[in-house]
Amino acid sequence: MEQGSSEFNRHRIFGIIGMGLMGGSYAKRLRQIGVQEIIGVDISAQVCVQAEKDGCVDRASTDPRILRRAEVVIFCLPAAAMVSFLRQYGAVFRAHALLTDITGIKEPLVPAVRQYVRADLDFILAHPMAGREGSGYAASRADIFDGANYIIVRREENTAAHLRDIGHLARALGCAHIVTVTPAVHDRYIAYTSNLPHILAVALVNSAGLHRRAAYFTAGSFRDASRVADINAPLWTRLLLANKENVLHEISSFQASLQGLTQALRDGDEDALLTLLEKAGQRRREWLHERN
Amino acid sequence: MEQGSSEFNRHRIFGIIGMGLMGGSYAKRLRQIGVQEIIGVDISAQVCVQAEKDGCVDRASTDPRILRRAEVVIFCLPAAAMVSFLRQYGAVFRAHALLTDITGIKEPLVPAVRQYVRADLDFILAHPMAGREGSGYAASRADIFDGANYIIVRREENTAAHLRDIGHLARALGCAHIVTVTPAVHDRYIAYTSNLPHILAVALVNSAGLHRRAAYFTAGSFRDASRVADINAPLWTRLLLANKENVLHEISSFQASLQGLTQALRDGDEDALLTLLEKAGQRRREWLHERN
Repeated sequence: MEQGSSEFNRHRIFGIIGMGLMGGSYAKRLRQIGVQEIIGVDISAQVCVQAEKDGCVDRASTDPRILRRAEVVIFCLPAAAMVSFLRQYGAVFRAHALLTDITGIKEPLVPAVRQYVRADLDFILAHPMAGREGSGYAASRADIFDGANYIIVRREENTAAHLRDIGHLARALGCAHIVTVTPAVHDRYIAYTSNLPHILAVALVNSAGLHRRAAYFTAGSFRDASRVADINAPLWTRLLLANKENVLHEISSFQASLQGLTQALRDGDEDALLTLLEKAGQRRREWLHERN
Repeated sequence: MEQGSSEFNRHRIFGIIGMGLMGGSYAKRLRQIGVQEIIGVDISAQVCVQAEKDGCVDRASTDPRILRRAEVVIFCLPAAAMVSFLRQYGAVFRAHALLTDITGIKEPLVPAVRQYVRADLDFILAHPMAGREGSGYAASRADIFDGANYIIVRREENTAAHLRDIGHLARALGCAHIVTVTPAVHDRYIAYTSNLPHILAVALVNSAGLHRRAAYFTAGSFRDASRVADINAPLWTRLLLANKENVLHEISSFQASLQGLTQALRDGDEDALLTLLEKAGQRRREWLHERN
């Protein structure tokens, strides 16, 4: 009989590396689930004290050796910091521990994971499509997982049992859908669904059309289209560069689509323009329906 | 002493032509303000009955002659229907009545207004930057005006007294800011703040990057960027064509901005990319602040 998701998680000791917005949210939700033990690691002693005080971790420390009993370890660090941790502290993990992460671009991480993760460990790249505004432990919340999609990025080395375990974890966190893809497919899809919308928001706000007085002419459409222009610029610079080829490909597809609209408008071709607008409405409705 | 906004409106008889989402919302808010009388006109007898039943109008009819006592008339019709009404029923309006509207593109209307509006009437083109999802009378709500911007599009023929009256009306409706511009400037700004975001959303959703399975990879950034792709396609086709030259200009500025980002990414130029991302965050924060 297959082990239920709550059953799997309840008897596990979890480690969380990086107690920021995401790490704190994992800790708070895992505490609600009622897992056996939660151990936190953060470079800030103050954050460790606060997390212990909040009761979302049993123990937290700036010393990675605290992780040595953890059976499931969740990296909640930016990609470069995670690779550096793996290289430096690869020896601290319990034998046969299951590792996972939340980084946004996966394929460039594959060689580093192969190089720095011990042979007895299994590292399953993954992330929930979840988050919220703000940053740091103070912005963390247990409910960010509710109804989100959870992406598991499968590598050849991952065992079927561990892939199942991560699926159980995702369900227990409150995620609605779990999708498993390869690193290459992951990065390609993410280039369209996440990297490209960020690029478009930045290009819109940086466009010459933004006049001081035009600010009074904004309503919902501009606010929505520009919302993610105000991002963590260093983090996103690295993310975009890490997925450069896919992002360039998606920009190019977008430009072709925009060109079609522009041509219909320039020609004053009412039928062609109407067809493109109707197509967009239909595609969006079908696509969002698809996800639910 | 200047007449207060509530003072001006309380003693007026209002007419509303088109009791859809916007017309119904005007009626409901004007009723809350406590104006002397509200008269509604709609092509649907059923909507007229419902609006009377809801008490947001004193009387409503499919017969435009019901408007003959109205001192302030608000057209809540699409542009073509409004021009057709002016041409056909120009004689029904009370002498010296003040007319206004809510249409989205103004400059192409100027000749028609000049041609069909009687010399004793004053027509002030305007609109609130307000609305909501859905359409029709059933979707109307008094609170859509709260905190919105109200745009007054001044023509040479408009009297200073009437421009002031429309400002009083906007304040009484609950709008936070009132901006007065010429038709040409209005259409130029709207091309950036509203037409362009709609074009980008449509181009994004119609792009080849949209794969069925990628739907599971969406989070807030894509949902926001694509929200207005699902629009009233015939209405928006006409709006975009009515503002064609301005929209083409804004698309071109946007493309230049996108090109700068693309080049930085293609070159792997981390500094240039970071600078563009930081600039966008700063511009958006300043711009939205400007409006408040």
